Amino acid sequence: MYKVLAFAGSLRKDSINKKLLNALKANAPENLEIEIFDIANIPLYNSDTEAENFPEVVKQLKEKITAADGVLIVTPEYNWSVPGVVKNVIDWASRPYGQSVWGKKCLAITGATSGWQGTVRSQTMLKSILQMMGAYVMPEPELLVSHFDDNFDREGNPNQETAQKLTEFMAGISDWISHFKR
Amino acid sequence: MYKVLAFAGSLRKDSINKKLLNALKANAPENLEIEIFDIANIPLYNSDTEAENFPEVVKQLKEKITAADGVLIVTPEYNWSVPGVVKNVIDWASRPYGQSVWGKKCLAITGATSGWQGTVRSQTMLKSILQMMGAYVMPEPELLVSHFDDNFDREGNPNQETAQKLTEFMAGISDWISHFKR
Amino acid sequence: MYKVLAFAGSLRKDSINKKLLNALKANAPENLEIEIFDIANIPLYNSDTEAENFPEVVKQLKEKITAADGVLIVTPEYNWSVPGVVKNVIDWASRPYGQSVWGKKCLAITGATSGWQGTVRSQTMLKSILQMMGAYVMPEPELLVSHFDDNFDREGNPNQETAQKLTEFMAGISDWISHFKR
Amino acid sequence: MYKVLAFAGSLRKDSINKKLLNALKANAPENLEIEIFDIANIPLYNSDTEAENFPEVVKQLKEKITAADGVLIVTPEYNWSVPGVVKNVIDWASRPYGQSVWGKKCLAITGATSGWQGTVRSQTMLKSILQMMGAYVMPEPELLVSHFDDNFDREGNPNQETAQKLTEFMAGISDWISHFKR
Repeated sequence: MYKVLAFAGSLRKDSINKKLLNALKANAPENLEIEIFDIANIPLYNSDTEAENFPEVVKQLKEKITAADGVLIVTPEYNWSVPGVVKNVIDWASRPYGQSVWGKKCLAITGATSGWQGTVRSQTMLKSILQMMGAYVMPEPELLVSHFDDNFDREGNPNQETAQKLTEFMAGISDWISHFKR
Repeated sequence: MYKVLAFAGSLRKDSINKKLLNALKANAPENLEIEIFDIANIPLYNSDTEAENFPEVVKQLKEKITAADGVLIVTPEYNWSVPGVVKNVIDWASRPYGQSVWGKKCLAITGATSGWQGTVRSQTMLKSILQMMGAYVMPEPELLVSHFDDNFDREGNPNQETAQKLTEFMAGISDWISHFKR
Repeated sequence: MYKVLAFAGSLRKDSINKKLLNALKANAPENLEIEIFDIANIPLYNSDTEAENFPEVVKQLKEKITAADGVLIVTPEYNWSVPGVVKNVIDWASRPYGQSVWGKKCLAITGATSGWQGTVRSQTMLKSILQMMGAYVMPEPELLVSHFDDNFDREGNPNQETAQKLTEFMAGISDWISHFKR
Repeated sequence: MYKVLAFAGSLRKDSINKKLLNALKANAPENLEIEIFDIANIPLYNSDTEAENFPEVVKQLKEKITAADGVLIVTPEYNWSVPGVVKNVIDWASRPYGQSVWGKKCLAITGATSGWQGTVRSQTMLKSILQMMGAYVMPEPELLVSHFDDNFDREGNPNQETAQKLTEFMAGISDWISHFKR
């Protein structure tokens, strides 16, 4: 049994990436326990705040990541790159200096777009960033969810072909973690 | 006379990148008018907020960028990449859809570190992002300010060698803008 | 009248990127004179060769680029990134040290794929590389040619919708050069 | 006992990256068997050549990589990015379609410069490329060898401090492989 802490990289209530995360959770293998964390209350990083009053919500996130066997980030692409909102979460969880949670942590990254490119550039960039930070970033399968509204219904349920891809992606996470947790 | 809207990418009061920005302003040629914008009050991007109540501070930033001939971003490197705080500002100023301020805007990017690499990876990434967004990103001179405390005094004044580099960088901005504003 | 030196980044005879380059040439505005250079005889970069016997073909390429107002690279995507073949040409033309042809040179980049992603990652990477080298890389329009065989006939002629995009891209090159050559 | 196939990414006889590779081999732990492969005879990638006469030297390289538990690439930085020469090797070894050797292969990357940046941008880019290809790229330790001539003698022997870093890097490779080969 592996624990995976997951978050969606959008603050929008009706976010397609939140829906994708829910669908991924629903298609996870039995040996993955997915906990979804809401990043809405994580403030903008400020090292004065860090020094004076380290935010409780970041402490909680860090504890949950530390306790987890892996982290799943489901992120939109803003301007062909990683949303500031997502990088901000990563920055906070790397602090204080020397106490980053990302080193040697198994990471899986995916994302959805309404359009055709499926967050390809955002994913590529985020994988590169996390790898520079020492994370064990799952290289494959790559999951680029494009044309979200064509492939998911209004309740966020994927069609059969998409569900198959989600299942393979989640099985990939289990395999990836197993390399480091045997 | 060219107007340049500038901001530092750190929220810390005593930020070395804020000091670098001040020193750059002090070393600008006479035909550059540098206005420094404080990004402290720009919230995290949320498309619900965008729809319901577009933040006044973002409107102001967008108006100032639109009115300016160029933008100067002086940014730290967080985790070998662009700070979430900086990308968040860029994301906001690209909204609403179709009303981004970044297309065809002259952009110059630099940054400072206490250590030896001088924000090289952060700058490379940010230049690539802004170029994908259609900005006219100044390719050279490249200014990587490393070992900040060795090269600046406590009041943030650069030593002579560094001052020379700052002067060249600012002259480069003037030249770059002149290509598009003649 | 602007001169543009162009090359395709594939050595394959029947390359879709060679076809795209021909189609781009056919859709160029009247004020662009496109010369196509064949990179087939450029050897692998070796600094011993450089020191002993700088290749004639590279000298020719460098002279043509120096004489041109801009360079157009039409490149495939190999392994989601810039082909070694293309980077090798760029490396050679940056030599000897201090005699690179790329600094302050106007550059436009595009490419074609049989599949759906249209060389998006290859283009992003190549634009970033050339910008680091001091080139003036055209940020927009972005031209991602996907599903080549659906959009071009056997002789390499684009359908009407695609022809329109090629025309806009080539007009963009003319505009871009004009910023630096007025 | 793990087998590691290694190559230097420079064709120059007196390459500092070849020297670094030799020094890395000399500082490998006992359970790593390092075989150095010479890439000098690998031609430029051409899919016509691939179809008609797949090069023997590439077949050999691919067999050796397939038989190895990991691959070590010691590469210079050309123009702040991956040398064409190195990417060309990677491109060849990914062919024919569907028979790439890079998927699920353990990879370690490092490099040396005479100057101060230690191939940081080249390494970042190459790690990102190989990860997109499905390789298991070792994220840490990161080894940036700068000021080569200050840290190695004429025979290519590192000073003590550098030797320690090489030893740690090679021990890291052994650890990294062990995650996937237990």
